Amino acid sequence: MTTQTPRLCRTFQTAPAAVPKENTAKYLESGLASEGFAKPDWLVPDVEDGTAPDMKEAALENVIDRLPDAAFVGEIWPRVEWSYDDEPFRDRGREQIDALVREVGEHVDGVVVPKVGRLADVERAERIVADAEEAYGYPEGTVGMSVIVETARAVSDLREIAASGATSRLEGLIFGPVDYAAELGGRETGGERPRWDALLATLSNEASANGLVAVGGPFDRLFGERAGVRFYNGDAYADQVEREARVGLDGSWSLHPQQTAQANRIHMPSSDELARDVRRIEAFEEAKSAGTGAVTVDGQMIDEATYKNFRNTVETALAIERAAPEQAAEAYDSALLDRARALGE
Amino acid sequence: MTTQTPRLCRTFQTAPAAVPKENTAKYLESGLASEGFAKPDWLVPDVEDGTAPDMKEAALENVIDRLPDAAFVGEIWPRVEWSYDDEPFRDRGREQIDALVREVGEHVDGVVVPKVGRLADVERAERIVADAEEAYGYPEGTVGMSVIVETARAVSDLREIAASGATSRLEGLIFGPVDYAAELGGRETGGERPRWDALLATLSNEASANGLVAVGGPFDRLFGERAGVRFYNGDAYADQVEREARVGLDGSWSLHPQQTAQANRIHMPSSDELARDVRRIEAFEEAKSAGTGAVTVDGQMIDEATYKNFRNTVETALAIERAAPEQAAEAYDSALLDRARALGE
Amino acid sequence: MTTQTPRLCRTFQTAPAAVPKENTAKYLESGLASEGFAKPDWLVPDVEDGTAPDMKEAALENVIDRLPDAAFVGEIWPRVEWSYDDEPFRDRGREQIDALVREVGEHVDGVVVPKVGRLADVERAERIVADAEEAYGYPEGTVGMSVIVETARAVSDLREIAASGATSRLEGLIFGPVDYAAELGGRETGGERPRWDALLATLSNEASANGLVAVGGPFDRLFGERAGVRFYNGDAYADQVEREARVGLDGSWSLHPQQTAQANRIHMPSSDELARDVRRIEAFEEAKSAGTGAVTVDGQMIDEATYKNFRNTVETALAIERAAPEQAAEAYDSALLDRARALGE
Repeated sequence: MTTQTPRLCRTFQTAPAAVPKENTAKYLESGLASEGFAKPDWLVPDVEDGTAPDMKEAALENVIDRLPDAAFVGEIWPRVEWSYDDEPFRDRGREQIDALVREVGEHVDGVVVPKVGRLADVERAERIVADAEEAYGYPEGTVGMSVIVETARAVSDLREIAASGATSRLEGLIFGPVDYAAELGGRETGGERPRWDALLATLSNEASANGLVAVGGPFDRLFGERAGVRFYNGDAYADQVEREARVGLDGSWSLHPQQTAQANRIHMPSSDELARDVRRIEAFEEAKSAGTGAVTVDGQMIDEATYKNFRNTVETALAIERAAPEQAAEAYDSALLDRARALGE
Repeated sequence: MTTQTPRLCRTFQTAPAAVPKENTAKYLESGLASEGFAKPDWLVPDVEDGTAPDMKEAALENVIDRLPDAAFVGEIWPRVEWSYDDEPFRDRGREQIDALVREVGEHVDGVVVPKVGRLADVERAERIVADAEEAYGYPEGTVGMSVIVETARAVSDLREIAASGATSRLEGLIFGPVDYAAELGGRETGGERPRWDALLATLSNEASANGLVAVGGPFDRLFGERAGVRFYNGDAYADQVEREARVGLDGSWSLHPQQTAQANRIHMPSSDELARDVRRIEAFEEAKSAGTGAVTVDGQMIDEATYKNFRNTVETALAIERAAPEQAAEAYDSALLDRARALGE
Repeated sequence: MTTQTPRLCRTFQTAPAAVPKENTAKYLESGLASEGFAKPDWLVPDVEDGTAPDMKEAALENVIDRLPDAAFVGEIWPRVEWSYDDEPFRDRGREQIDALVREVGEHVDGVVVPKVGRLADVERAERIVADAEEAYGYPEGTVGMSVIVETARAVSDLREIAASGATSRLEGLIFGPVDYAAELGGRETGGERPRWDALLATLSNEASANGLVAVGGPFDRLFGERAGVRFYNGDAYADQVEREARVGLDGSWSLHPQQTAQANRIHMPSSDELARDVRRIEAFEEAKSAGTGAVTVDGQMIDEATYKNFRNTVETALAIERAAPEQAAEAYDSALLDRARALGE
């Protein structure tokens, strides 16, 4: 079980760090001010593809300016520029990482590096983070790194990249379907987009085998229109998130507060699941005190092995309570949370 | 072609080795007494998850007591306890393997080891079997080993684990979806369970590349109920077994004699397939005697290359006849079996 | 981006090199004389499974005789015999490769080697091509090699085989589902054939990561019949080709001129796609001259990163124009082609 101390990343919400509006930090600010179920576990100020080329400077300045005073409770992971096969992008990435660690190192949990190639390229990016960390006096490993898996080379080396994460600052693997499809030459045909089911399952497996977080790709058809009415595409997004949860991805990519609200809920234990697993653990611990090694609750036998899975539900719920107390309070009744807390101690 | 001398494992039927009934060996005994199509190719007395923690001793005793006098014709593979990340489970596994080899070594074909991790963990389990084999005077390699593939680490190392099987006592790879989903954090969403199609295809490929047997996971919704009537869920199970046969798994997991009866039939050549391939081989051998290198039967050209596939059908049917004569007699008419036997010599 | 100088293989059309007809080269000749959309990018004179065992000599002679004077504009890749586990097949393959390079080395782009096993077997075949090349005075690397991926061993070693292609004469990976299913023991069940979606996605990925061409497997149900009428199975084939294009395979296998005509169209940029990407590049280059790093066209932001994908569309269209000018002229209007050519320079 690699999930005993669950790392939360139910939602990975990117926010363009600068947009061509009067307040260029508009979306960054609203991400930092998000509340309730609209608050993502990871907020990702985006200096890369979400920001226009002529606004990269402003984007970096916005991040450096807004993070220190933000009241955001959750992890902050800016996405910088990078490309395994394009040096100017890597040079800008190095400058951005350096500036972020120098100016707001204590306010970020890590950086997100896109378009990495083979293992050697991932290690090249990690050295840049390590250099910045050392240069500005942070203890080794303070600043994490996550990568967007969106090139043929990264997928080819996925097992090695993930395994390196077991002993490095690498903490997350996030899927990037748009660039990935472009690099493979995949495209929409017959009205259907490519689906990468096998790759998502492998991402989930390798993340679990190495204690990393795995996150699915963005869903960009945010709004639909039919018979003259435009509406938030909530069903289609929830379908994708459910598919991702089914194969064990820890979280989903969000482009919008409504997507965040849905993905936060889908990736958390339901109230029924939590109640059921709390009941199972209570019964098992009672049986253990009474000298038996197993007990049957609601027709399911609970022993040392299955017990771990039930504990995991409880620990995830408690981690959510710590990171997003409003969400836990809304999802679970307080008596249930009390029982969970009693088991968690 | 790795399948020239086919190893049969159409059915991998687990039977709890001890249950809380007056006769704790009830299910073990009925497995050992199974007949006709309800007789599995591999019977797996289960000392692991199928047996309650406080009955493990009784389970081991039942196996040791019942095997010597059983009339069962087929392979016997007890499943012991194990866990790549939990030493007490491995200690019990070692004791169980030791006891089984010591007491009934000549009555078992091998042991099934669950929850293995990376290659090194599989090798650790193999050394325990080797030690027991040596301690009790069995020739090296007498006692086989199969593993349940149900952890992220085992899946990550699947290619290496399977390759090690080409030169070791490892003989089978069995999929364990319940623990696998739990470890990855996968779960039922939107009413659908996770499906691991890509993993099953890889399991089939790696087994074929290394001469191992590959088996699908259990189907636990044995019974359905609708409009007040409870019934054996035969359609849903057959769908799963057909899906497994399609990608070339050698066999399916069975939890019940009716599942065994279905999986045995689905994983064997149909009477029509056997008749067709016997006819093709006869025609090809005739053509060869006449000096031609190929012949066309029913519109299909038969040459040295395709010939191998047809031979494989015949050899599988003959292997079934040796292992389960009643099943062969029921599935194929005797004239057809005579022609197959003539080709097999 | 590994696709900047696109290698075309939209269609891989096999033609039996000898058939039992008055003119044994009938199908080879019609392949060599194909025109318009029925002309494949790669024509594959088949000395292997498409030719009967007693016609192998005639097949080789036909290829040697017909290639020198053929007006075919496109690549020519004869398929020879081979088998990783059967020496007589490899001996014949060696003789066929030797004869082809000796007699018509300047008229072939490479040879297609089927039924390869692990990496070492692929390298064994490559040495044979290298030996022939040297023996008959061709510069190293003149004669390419592509392999049919259709054994469990080749799939197990796919990553290593593809990686070797980055520095060797290996140029293409073609899927062979019939032999593959037979080797794994997969078969049609419940009226459905096995599908190997995960394997096709991996083939596409590894080809892209190493600059190789990836091609799907043959579709052999060429004709359907319903209510007494026999017809070309165009819908079912197009569905398969679209599925292959979706995951980024470069091309599809064709067994018939009508299949070639469909696959050529599906694997080329549509007129709308080309017009859109030409417009985007023109706007981006204009913006760059004006000193901006990005521009928005039809709601999509274009920068250095996305620009590459648009260039790729244009370069593919220009490559098609060079290889099959009739097809480009039919698919794109001449003003659009002029604009594409202007960008391509």
